[in-house]
Amino acid sequence: MWVYLNNRIVQAERARISVFDRGFLYGDGVFETVRIHEGRPVWLDRHLTRLAGSCRQIRMPLPEKPWPAIFQKVIDKNRVDDALIRLTLSRGTRNPGGDGRATPDAGANPTIVLFPRPLPALTPSQRRKGVKLTLATVRRPLPRSCFSQAKTLNYLNNLLAKQEAEERGAFEALMLTTGGHLAECSMSNLFFIRDKTLYTPSLACGVLPGITRGVVLDVAPTLGLQTREGRYRPEVLHDADECFLTSSGVGILPVREIEGHSLPKQTARSWTAVLQTRYEQLLSAHGR
Amino acid sequence: MWVYLNNRIVQAERARISVFDRGFLYGDGVFETVRIHEGRPVWLDRHLTRLAGSCRQIRMPLPEKPWPAIFQKVIDKNRVDDALIRLTLSRGTRNPGGDGRATPDAGANPTIVLFPRPLPALTPSQRRKGVKLTLATVRRPLPRSCFSQAKTLNYLNNLLAKQEAEERGAFEALMLTTGGHLAECSMSNLFFIRDKTLYTPSLACGVLPGITRGVVLDVAPTLGLQTREGRYRPEVLHDADECFLTSSGVGILPVREIEGHSLPKQTARSWTAVLQTRYEQLLSAHGR
Repeated sequence: MWVYLNNRIVQAERARISVFDRGFLYGDGVFETVRIHEGRPVWLDRHLTRLAGSCRQIRMPLPEKPWPAIFQKVIDKNRVDDALIRLTLSRGTRNPGGDGRATPDAGANPTIVLFPRPLPALTPSQRRKGVKLTLATVRRPLPRSCFSQAKTLNYLNNLLAKQEAEERGAFEALMLTTGGHLAECSMSNLFFIRDKTLYTPSLACGVLPGITRGVVLDVAPTLGLQTREGRYRPEVLHDADECFLTSSGVGILPVREIEGHSLPKQTARSWTAVLQTRYEQLLSAHGR
Repeated sequence: MWVYLNNRIVQAERARISVFDRGFLYGDGVFETVRIHEGRPVWLDRHLTRLAGSCRQIRMPLPEKPWPAIFQKVIDKNRVDDALIRLTLSRGTRNPGGDGRATPDAGANPTIVLFPRPLPALTPSQRRKGVKLTLATVRRPLPRSCFSQAKTLNYLNNLLAKQEAEERGAFEALMLTTGGHLAECSMSNLFFIRDKTLYTPSLACGVLPGITRGVVLDVAPTLGLQTREGRYRPEVLHDADECFLTSSGVGILPVREIEGHSLPKQTARSWTAVLQTRYEQLLSAHGR
């Protein structure tokens, strides 16, 4: 595997950073995970807009770089067809010898890392019939207590929620807000459908403004679905006709069970399947 | 500067880790900052106990290592007399070539890093008369939404609170809970005194169980101060006789102003000064 590291393409084994890198010491940085389809980055413009927003929130300058060309270089060098590329941007370190001070300084040089990773392994049955969710014990922090709308390297509670779900035989962990409302899953956004209306927790619930979430909200009305963003109690999922997850990794993925409660069976005529088809079309259009 | 990195002592410039290290990608790790006094680590046992607790909370095994000997090696090699040593422990990466998967795996090798850093620069006047605090705009997450009792590499909101304070000419940022109660400062715990009673926010407020906080709570009763841990509104600080911060870096540091409100002037007979003296005695006893 080849890694882009600060203007160079190096072999994965040689892609090394200082232990004084603020990304390592404090999680002081941001990231994006971009879908690559047919050898092209998809919705890269949206990812770069969000990246700029994440940087603004943590008050880190976004380096001016030819981002599309950098992505293409990583794609070409690794011969990536369908996969993901993770872009990590940390505040770096002022001094490679390191002074280890906690407060950032203006002279810090950002560390820029891009590498490919495979798409999540999903069986055809998971894709079609859906996956299981469990309820995470850890809550999603409120916007004012964490940078919940920035995609930062402070990712520990998401990781542990996901791990907990996997240990309980589920694919993803549903996270609630500290107030007990639906927020999102550890690495994906949550949608549910009832009576021709598509619902998703609003950004005020401390959810990440997912790129695929945005695409789904844009596309749904063109297919005849009303959309609503709001604050919902987890019990509403018991009356949902359909439920699905979105992320750049999984795309649109149906949910068949939430913490032991089974949802109605999906058919080829379910809204989720219609949205999946439309999403695949958009992916291909973007890939080309 | 010499750095301990996974069983070796290397020069700072050569202390490098993989970009696939989970500490860098997700802040997936923990740390401790230990006071070194007269060439010896102080309260190392307490730090190691807390480290074990942090590891347990993020479900990472604590490697069995001769920690006191490792600290001493870093101290000796760097000829450290009075300073701090930061110990960083990340979940590492399974494969040096990196697979970049988000979920941790059992085979991951931890990354262990120790390096010295100077004590915070404080003027004699700051030490004696005290420092200024501002109120942070970011709130301290509740225990159930973050690992607030674990000292993890997810340190971004603390960093930004501190930076905000410094930009406003203050030394530290006072952080409230999401419910608006006193929590702690970005890198130190908070105490206040009124009528011979020493108050500090309880751990349930999402504060880190500071080592110096623990020492102060142990020592105060022996000096004639009652101690109370609880949940307090920030307004109570307006009626405080004294207020101070604690951390391994600053020790016990008086506060003279909080968000524009001045506190009564400290004298050599103030409780804070008495506690400072006792703390210095304990430091020296431990150093020897």
